Amino acid sequence: MQLRERLADWLSKPAVSNFIIGVILVNAVLLGMETSDTIMSRVGGVIHLLDNLCLAIFVIELAAKLFALGPRFFRSGWNIFDFVIVGIALVPAAQGLSVLRALRILRVMRVISVAPSLRRVVEGFVTALPGMGSVFLLMGIIFYIGSVMATKLFGDTFPDWFGTLGYSAYSLFQIMTLESWSMGIVRPVMEIYPYAWAFFVPFIMMTTFAVVNLLVGLIVNSMQDAHSADEGERTDAYRDEVLARLTAIEARLQDAPKATKEDAAKK
Amino acid sequence: MQLRERLADWLSKPAVSNFIIGVILVNAVLLGMETSDTIMSRVGGVIHLLDNLCLAIFVIELAAKLFALGPRFFRSGWNIFDFVIVGIALVPAAQGLSVLRALRILRVMRVISVAPSLRRVVEGFVTALPGMGSVFLLMGIIFYIGSVMATKLFGDTFPDWFGTLGYSAYSLFQIMTLESWSMGIVRPVMEIYPYAWAFFVPFIMMTTFAVVNLLVGLIVNSMQDAHSADEGERTDAYRDEVLARLTAIEARLQDAPKATKEDAAKK
Amino acid sequence: MQLRERLADWLSKPAVSNFIIGVILVNAVLLGMETSDTIMSRVGGVIHLLDNLCLAIFVIELAAKLFALGPRFFRSGWNIFDFVIVGIALVPAAQGLSVLRALRILRVMRVISVAPSLRRVVEGFVTALPGMGSVFLLMGIIFYIGSVMATKLFGDTFPDWFGTLGYSAYSLFQIMTLESWSMGIVRPVMEIYPYAWAFFVPFIMMTTFAVVNLLVGLIVNSMQDAHSADEGERTDAYRDEVLARLTAIEARLQDAPKATKEDAAKK
Amino acid sequence: MQLRERLADWLSKPAVSNFIIGVILVNAVLLGMETSDTIMSRVGGVIHLLDNLCLAIFVIELAAKLFALGPRFFRSGWNIFDFVIVGIALVPAAQGLSVLRALRILRVMRVISVAPSLRRVVEGFVTALPGMGSVFLLMGIIFYIGSVMATKLFGDTFPDWFGTLGYSAYSLFQIMTLESWSMGIVRPVMEIYPYAWAFFVPFIMMTTFAVVNLLVGLIVNSMQDAHSADEGERTDAYRDEVLARLTAIEARLQDAPKATKEDAAKK
Repeated sequence: MQLRERLADWLSKPAVSNFIIGVILVNAVLLGMETSDTIMSRVGGVIHLLDNLCLAIFVIELAAKLFALGPRFFRSGWNIFDFVIVGIALVPAAQGLSVLRALRILRVMRVISVAPSLRRVVEGFVTALPGMGSVFLLMGIIFYIGSVMATKLFGDTFPDWFGTLGYSAYSLFQIMTLESWSMGIVRPVMEIYPYAWAFFVPFIMMTTFAVVNLLVGLIVNSMQDAHSADEGERTDAYRDEVLARLTAIEARLQDAPKATKEDAAKK
Repeated sequence: MQLRERLADWLSKPAVSNFIIGVILVNAVLLGMETSDTIMSRVGGVIHLLDNLCLAIFVIELAAKLFALGPRFFRSGWNIFDFVIVGIALVPAAQGLSVLRALRILRVMRVISVAPSLRRVVEGFVTALPGMGSVFLLMGIIFYIGSVMATKLFGDTFPDWFGTLGYSAYSLFQIMTLESWSMGIVRPVMEIYPYAWAFFVPFIMMTTFAVVNLLVGLIVNSMQDAHSADEGERTDAYRDEVLARLTAIEARLQDAPKATKEDAAKK
Repeated sequence: MQLRERLADWLSKPAVSNFIIGVILVNAVLLGMETSDTIMSRVGGVIHLLDNLCLAIFVIELAAKLFALGPRFFRSGWNIFDFVIVGIALVPAAQGLSVLRALRILRVMRVISVAPSLRRVVEGFVTALPGMGSVFLLMGIIFYIGSVMATKLFGDTFPDWFGTLGYSAYSLFQIMTLESWSMGIVRPVMEIYPYAWAFFVPFIMMTTFAVVNLLVGLIVNSMQDAHSADEGERTDAYRDEVLARLTAIEARLQDAPKATKEDAAKK
Repeated sequence: MQLRERLADWLSKPAVSNFIIGVILVNAVLLGMETSDTIMSRVGGVIHLLDNLCLAIFVIELAAKLFALGPRFFRSGWNIFDFVIVGIALVPAAQGLSVLRALRILRVMRVISVAPSLRRVVEGFVTALPGMGSVFLLMGIIFYIGSVMATKLFGDTFPDWFGTLGYSAYSLFQIMTLESWSMGIVRPVMEIYPYAWAFFVPFIMMTTFAVVNLLVGLIVNSMQDAHSADEGERTDAYRDEVLARLTAIEARLQDAPKATKEDAAKK
């Protein structure tokens, strides 16, 4: 028990987390070098060795944290994040799938969980999401309805774009980002279905409007947070002081005449 | 009359609206499955049966509401919305038009009128629109003027893009979204009319500026709403209290000297 | 002199400006019909006649205004706007240039100067511009520098895109709007000048950043205007009242003890 | 020593800086004319002469400033900016590299350091950057991870787009700007790797979200600056007055009863 606490203390020291950041950055450079064939053909062995060393350090750090914190380890979202990312890195050591090997670079994302300033930015993103929930849900509904309609209307004639629900959803996402929506997709479709614009133009307007609303919501939220944090405190302090002083004046006014009365009575 | 009221009460129970949301979601999945040929060839009959069952439930619910509320039913925009959407779903049962069949998926939009959080988002959209009315009108004028000019100037040489008012409006909408405006449209036009940029570049600037203005208006509106709802109430409460206390002090000051005078008079 | 004043009064009556709006709308529809060959081949004569009638009404209205107001006519920007637009419409009656004929549709923009709500929106645009002056100037400088550099660097190899200062400015405008900037322009250029990205990527970042700054400036400006117009007045009224009451209390306190003293003195 | 001070005074006179702005503008026009072959073939000699004259004026001005200010010259970022820009202009006089000759137009940017209004805009940009540091860092991490993954996953099959880390970074920048991301890049990639969308769609969402966050941060920052500068002062003045008056009233109340007591005591 005491060993665990001492280990937890040691792990939360700035020197230890700085060392981990250093290892992450070295590992990021190593994984970047792995993409170059000329470097790999010359010093590939050294890079693999160093890469495995970095991974070993991560595994040891996580194991130590897991031992020090026990079940509390999984209470923090960031610990789970680290656990999954290092876990992914361990799988390709066994398996040889190229996708899993490519996912090893995700280890670099550990720098987010270790550096407090990046952590705050991501936490800001994540805490802003629930307030946007309804708009996301609405957009999901628009996309689902749009995909079903596009598949039924244009699926038979344009199977590459609207053949299945998935293809339609991808094409509609492309159209929402306005990429080649007209020249690439809608003009060819309109050659066969001349009224196709009556589906796509409202779709663009609705999704753009929803995105704009998300943006507006985000701005208004951050603005209010910034306002209440910064100005609000000073305003509250000022208001409390004014009210306290007014109370004091009232109290004094209630006493003052009495005092005069008493003075008068004494005489 | 009493039956009507009891029916209206029963329809507004959470259990009933949750059941309707459930039916909508099941129906959404069913309509999604209808887009898959493999699923339809195997269990198409069951899906059509369940789909008609869902539709029947909607029709019964709406009929009950219509009976319970009477003419008041049409006072709510959401009821009319439900009425039209279910009405569309009933038409293809008679007619066999593929477009109408595709419109059946619009039934899923009923979830918006039933779920309060989504309803609020859409109501927020709709209430923001009138304030934007002038900008929308201005954009309509810009588009109409632009379409007439483009048709007159480039219609004969580029009939596919600017042949009629409608084609021009569509092409200008594409140009406003900046999709392939230069490589796809304006550069080819400029090969024949070298000064075409003098029409299209100002058009892009004006419409983009109008869109930006819409966005700014939306942000400012939401910000003020949020501000008045949240901060305004506390500020008003504080101000009312300060003014009330000042009134009390003034009243006391008006009494106090009198009291002293009276005391003095008594002596 | 008296005739002039009565004419000015008559011209500013709502009935007259509503009639002018009506004429503008009819004229807009007529000019729209002129784009259709089938309509023109049948009733082209009637449309031309009505169009000239509308123009005659505009000319008479403007002449009456000019007579009624005298040199004061040119003090209002909107009058000059109307004067130029109707002037353009008169030129093609003499000359037969197709561009001038297309410009006749600009007459429809008169509706902006007549309808107060549209007028306000455009005035809002125009008053926001001076505050953005520095950013526009900065963007002009970026564009000029970019055009000269692009012409010198890539002009010989890609004369269609960067052959002259004008071509370069147009291409850079297209790149700023992000339309086909990479696939259409920069990738082909990079095949000959592999480091071309070092010119274009910073250009995109700088212009995008400047545009964002314009947007931010617009939002902040409108927000402050809205704030001061709406909230500010109430806040000022409240503050004035608090200060006035505090002054009154102070004055009373200065009198009150005196009164007590005097009372005491009397005894 | 005295000569230096007098020179520094003379250099900061409005007439001198206006003359320098004039020289910069003349030089800008000259450098623009250099891009035209017809102008250069006729009066190329004159233009080169005038261009060198402008450069000479800049060199003399900078040398004078350097002499007048001594080592303090390099304390101002704008002086270093001028020094580098004029320095670049001096290099091509010796060397004949076309890139360096094209960079001479950067001299026009000196107008930013001389004109106070442009200087303020750029300083506004620069001071906003540190607050955005974390988001930029996060975007750098996303881009690095994305580039390594894209190179490993798609580098062998699409060497033109994802062959090296640099190619991948450029392609991902293009995808972030949404230029031809689907039709140009992702659809061709998906023909070989059908699940490529699972990499690119989240990448687009994450980078777009980060860009939106930058924008929101900028807006909130400017808004608060504008708010504190404009409203804050008046609010602070009002609050100080209220508190001062309340103190005065309290002081008077503390004296008043005493005065009455003393009066009473005297009697």
